[in-house]
Amino acid sequence: MKHLDDSRLKKLMQKSLSDRKVTDEAILHVTESLIQTSMRGVDSHGINLFPHYCRAVDAGRVVRNPEIKINKTAESSAVIDAGHAFGHHVGALAIDLAVELASKTGIAAIGVKNSSHFGAAAYFALRAATKGYIGFSFTNADALVKAHSSKDPFFGTNPICFAAPLANESPFCLDMATSLVSWNKINNYRRMNQPIPAHWAFDKEGKPVIDPHLAKSLSPIGEYKGFGLGMMVDVLCAVLFGGLISKDLLAMYTSPIEAQRKIGHFFMAINISKFNSLDAFTRDLQSMVDRIRSLRKSDESQELMVAGDPEKNCVKEREVSGIPMDEIKFEEFLSLSPDFKTALK
Amino acid sequence: MKHLDDSRLKKLMQKSLSDRKVTDEAILHVTESLIQTSMRGVDSHGINLFPHYCRAVDAGRVVRNPEIKINKTAESSAVIDAGHAFGHHVGALAIDLAVELASKTGIAAIGVKNSSHFGAAAYFALRAATKGYIGFSFTNADALVKAHSSKDPFFGTNPICFAAPLANESPFCLDMATSLVSWNKINNYRRMNQPIPAHWAFDKEGKPVIDPHLAKSLSPIGEYKGFGLGMMVDVLCAVLFGGLISKDLLAMYTSPIEAQRKIGHFFMAINISKFNSLDAFTRDLQSMVDRIRSLRKSDESQELMVAGDPEKNCVKEREVSGIPMDEIKFEEFLSLSPDFKTALK
Repeated sequence: MKHLDDSRLKKLMQKSLSDRKVTDEAILHVTESLIQTSMRGVDSHGINLFPHYCRAVDAGRVVRNPEIKINKTAESSAVIDAGHAFGHHVGALAIDLAVELASKTGIAAIGVKNSSHFGAAAYFALRAATKGYIGFSFTNADALVKAHSSKDPFFGTNPICFAAPLANESPFCLDMATSLVSWNKINNYRRMNQPIPAHWAFDKEGKPVIDPHLAKSLSPIGEYKGFGLGMMVDVLCAVLFGGLISKDLLAMYTSPIEAQRKIGHFFMAINISKFNSLDAFTRDLQSMVDRIRSLRKSDESQELMVAGDPEKNCVKEREVSGIPMDEIKFEEFLSLSPDFKTALK
Repeated sequence: MKHLDDSRLKKLMQKSLSDRKVTDEAILHVTESLIQTSMRGVDSHGINLFPHYCRAVDAGRVVRNPEIKINKTAESSAVIDAGHAFGHHVGALAIDLAVELASKTGIAAIGVKNSSHFGAAAYFALRAATKGYIGFSFTNADALVKAHSSKDPFFGTNPICFAAPLANESPFCLDMATSLVSWNKINNYRRMNQPIPAHWAFDKEGKPVIDPHLAKSLSPIGEYKGFGLGMMVDVLCAVLFGGLISKDLLAMYTSPIEAQRKIGHFFMAINISKFNSLDAFTRDLQSMVDRIRSLRKSDESQELMVAGDPEKNCVKEREVSGIPMDEIKFEEFLSLSPDFKTALK
């Protein structure tokens, strides 16, 4: 395992995207998201995706200098045509616009179509929360979650992300796929050649499997409930403004790298100050979090946490140790440029 | 089992509330919600609660002629102090206001504090959906779901409800507690004296139980994910505007009936026509629903359904057969007034 310095790595990724003629603003958002996400320990959605994104730019799936069309349809709403921009970039523009509109009206909602993979949903919701807003971010994704009572997948892992500011620490952040586990977890078991728990995934006939190599679809959380939440996310991210639904999206890795995926996102920002004083809110939410952390523990050896706490702990660790990366992934970075060697801690 | 005619029962409930000097508008909303909910087969939140609600009015928990204070804080936001009104009533006012504000601005959000039990969340979201809006409704509830990694409950079953209009049938509606099963289901097993599945509930030490009589808290859906969703609901329904959080709410049945519960709700409406033509939206959502229903079935003997389909099937059945009610519950109605006999089918 290699360990990388986050700020040196960020600069190198920025240079790599700049060499590819990606716009400065997009570079800022993409690299900020990838570094933040890796620092938070969400390795499936952080820097590990960078070589893939470079290939996507080179092939034209992600447009380096996109025409992003923002259609503000009312005081609190807009629809953005991303023009196949980096999802991280158009998502940052969208949540910033949601905050701007909500600053006047109390709440705003922005739909984004014709986008690409946006990385971690947390990046956008946290962006609103650090400005004193409640942030929501959603995206659809290619069909990987088995439809309830069917053999087949229909919705993607369609995540729900919710973030809100706290008085004494970085914001509360829930960022969760509506599947029980991520596809990445299945991939980890494939690499280790180990059986998966029986309720995680299904084979091509929709039967539960423990062999990760036979897995074709994932379990939703709470059976029909997670299936319903996945549908809610797809309605907000696609049906609402005529975008492509999960079932019709190309897969991230197995579709031709030049093919544009036309992913949809949905963002909301709530202006807390239109409901309460921001101080009262952050104090009350801090009090809730502190009360939860001081409940009786099931297991005295385990920390009692709220959503986002494992990520906060990870940030502290990685600020010291750097961002870990396996040898194979590091070779992928070196194939982009030997300069990446200089990011080693 | 008795079977009751919905329209006769509704008139009798209306008279019973009118005799109690409940306001006409509140009577309309309460009885409409209870009948709709029972027709949809959600017997835990429909007419079975009516005798309890009458006792709550008689004791002063629910105020018969409340002072409801609506504070419109911006173009798309409002906070309502319910003054201990029927939750069904203030909730209907709130979602109607959300629709009115969103008609101009695209989206609106309304918080409600100092309220009472609002029945089924679906009543409100469906109210928005039948007007061509996406409706969201949320409520907090007394602490019944075990906190992740703790022995103790912290959040209520805090439901999430989402509804949206369809082209060829009544709206799509997902109405789900963030717990794996409802407390009502535990109560059913108690009545039958039968063991519950091992992953549904926990005893007072937070250990999984199969004896329903020992159950003190419920499992959230998807472990930490459902716990996080329950927290999101409590942030929206209480922390956002300084209301009481789940952990501090009195229980519905075991607290003194005269004690006001101060429940919080949160509602959002999205004006679809600010994102797409309403016709295109309802047609595209209908197409999604139809495609799901025609996927390959896991079990050929079972219908492939989306959220809300079981409720739609139940409405069709009960339009013919009436609303079922067990003998004990029917006696409770007769103790309110012998007139309820005339509602028998």
